[in-house]
Amino acid sequence: MSVIKILNQATRIVDPIMLKYLKKGAAREFLPILTYPIKAGGKRVRPALTILSCQACGGTVKDAKLPAAMIELIHNYSLIMDDIIDHGEVRRGVPTVRAKYGDTMALLAGMFYREAISQIAQDSPNPEEMHELLINTIKQTIEGERMDILFEQSGRTEQYLMEHRYESIRPHLYFELIRRKTAELIRAACVAGAVSANASNHYLNAVSRYGKNIGLAFQLIDDLLDIFGEKTGKQKGKDIIEHKLGNAVIVYALQELSALKQENLLQTLRSKEVDQYALEEVLHLLESTKAKSKILELARLYVSRAKRSLEVLPKTEARENLSDLADFIVTRPY
Amino acid sequence: MSVIKILNQATRIVDPIMLKYLKKGAAREFLPILTYPIKAGGKRVRPALTILSCQACGGTVKDAKLPAAMIELIHNYSLIMDDIIDHGEVRRGVPTVRAKYGDTMALLAGMFYREAISQIAQDSPNPEEMHELLINTIKQTIEGERMDILFEQSGRTEQYLMEHRYESIRPHLYFELIRRKTAELIRAACVAGAVSANASNHYLNAVSRYGKNIGLAFQLIDDLLDIFGEKTGKQKGKDIIEHKLGNAVIVYALQELSALKQENLLQTLRSKEVDQYALEEVLHLLESTKAKSKILELARLYVSRAKRSLEVLPKTEARENLSDLADFIVTRPY
Repeated sequence: MSVIKILNQATRIVDPIMLKYLKKGAAREFLPILTYPIKAGGKRVRPALTILSCQACGGTVKDAKLPAAMIELIHNYSLIMDDIIDHGEVRRGVPTVRAKYGDTMALLAGMFYREAISQIAQDSPNPEEMHELLINTIKQTIEGERMDILFEQSGRTEQYLMEHRYESIRPHLYFELIRRKTAELIRAACVAGAVSANASNHYLNAVSRYGKNIGLAFQLIDDLLDIFGEKTGKQKGKDIIEHKLGNAVIVYALQELSALKQENLLQTLRSKEVDQYALEEVLHLLESTKAKSKILELARLYVSRAKRSLEVLPKTEARENLSDLADFIVTRPY
Repeated sequence: MSVIKILNQATRIVDPIMLKYLKKGAAREFLPILTYPIKAGGKRVRPALTILSCQACGGTVKDAKLPAAMIELIHNYSLIMDDIIDHGEVRRGVPTVRAKYGDTMALLAGMFYREAISQIAQDSPNPEEMHELLINTIKQTIEGERMDILFEQSGRTEQYLMEHRYESIRPHLYFELIRRKTAELIRAACVAGAVSANASNHYLNAVSRYGKNIGLAFQLIDDLLDIFGEKTGKQKGKDIIEHKLGNAVIVYALQELSALKQENLLQTLRSKEVDQYALEEVLHLLESTKAKSKILELARLYVSRAKRSLEVLPKTEARENLSDLADFIVTRPY
């Protein structure tokens, strides 16, 4: 099956479930707000991973559908809250919930999502393990978002953030950041599939490793796009404009630049507003480094590790599809 | 046991548990923020209700301690989020989490609280029922907060809120509001105690009715204090200044005022900023009505209903204490 077909199938399976659980106990007037983020779309990569991981471990689509919807709701929950924190205006090509309905309703909607997540977990196979998985995953995601914000070098006026910012970054800390903010949820998507299939530890560990590795690859490529990715509809230099030190391109550029150029780069990230001239200069500087090729190399390495992890699983179409999804991650346009 | 002793005992039992669960999986640097709201104090009425309800249904303090901590964490979770929504500056005599650490960290802390709540539920007696109880309760609390905001007549600039405000209020809708925003959690505190004691439905329903009724009485008195309560450290006329239509004093005053005076009152609530002169005038108007005596009468009625609900339970010290707590609610200084 093509990746597009896989994602479409996941959408058809999880969207009605997410909508059903979001409607439980909600006032009629609250519904347009609650359902808006789901109807706005999204690729549904994570629930596809849950379904395929379940099948690859010997389970059925039926076993996986609730956990898959749960995982996608966790993703949407974190997006709603992140957009409040980052004053995000556009997502998936349309206004964010907060842009459309205001921060107050967005926050209440986010809180409501969190309850729907637990409700799906309760109705899933192995609800206790599912709950443990989702709690630990959300905690990691929160921690990742906390780190991400503290890696921003300017742009926020909150006293605490200004006093507690990270002043520097190294690959070790960068990988802790992206593991938490991205890879843990992708890993959880795969583990949820294994749990819903009652998989052995051997199989569960295989899809867990697979998920972690494609999660890291996914964020590495995302970081590339957030600097150089004007072709994909993203704003060119987005992460520079947003003062982010926690981007792989910055991390690896800093590794090889002279002390003077490091200082220049940091100064731009720390300026109150990054103007067009400074942005072009930084982009030029970053392009002069080996950061991009280094990151592509790393992403490919993680993808190949991910695919290798799958080898212990029986040879099935689902395993093939997981392998294709891994490739899809590093072949997105960048 | 005196009410003060009951509350102190609850504090000694639940505070260490709340802190323990908040520390699980949290980064060291996040801890001061996470523990701040707990260390800021609070009366611990809700966990006291859980412990006493458990004992009154034949359970022990040991059975009740995790659910009691869970209930108090739900309360704190909703306070953290409400303070973000209302830009609250002071709570329990000290700066709110958001005032001290900023909205971003407060929101992430709130989200982390939600995970700790589920973790306590998992370790509680009857985790599945406990989860169902907490999910439904939080959903009601969210809905109550949503209604509360839509009853505000001015002061928010979000387009959606300005377009979807309630224009009027009647006792029926007011009671739906306070049931959701206040009474459901207090009821849940009592039900959690019964669930942890493996109580029969007969006993569970008794403490459930008790909890709902004292919850309603509690909010009625709170509404009185938020209008007339300058003696208790609250700002005199607080709910007028905050443009709230969803206050019992307003609701019952509107019932008896002439059309012209109703219009005057609503106009003040809808003005951009309520000045001292307008405030005094409204307070004078409200004092001229029977709203206060009507509310006190209602609160006493709910307390007596609450105490009557307890009669099916065996005569124990815990039952006595629940009865005293009910009286405590209507004898707070107002």
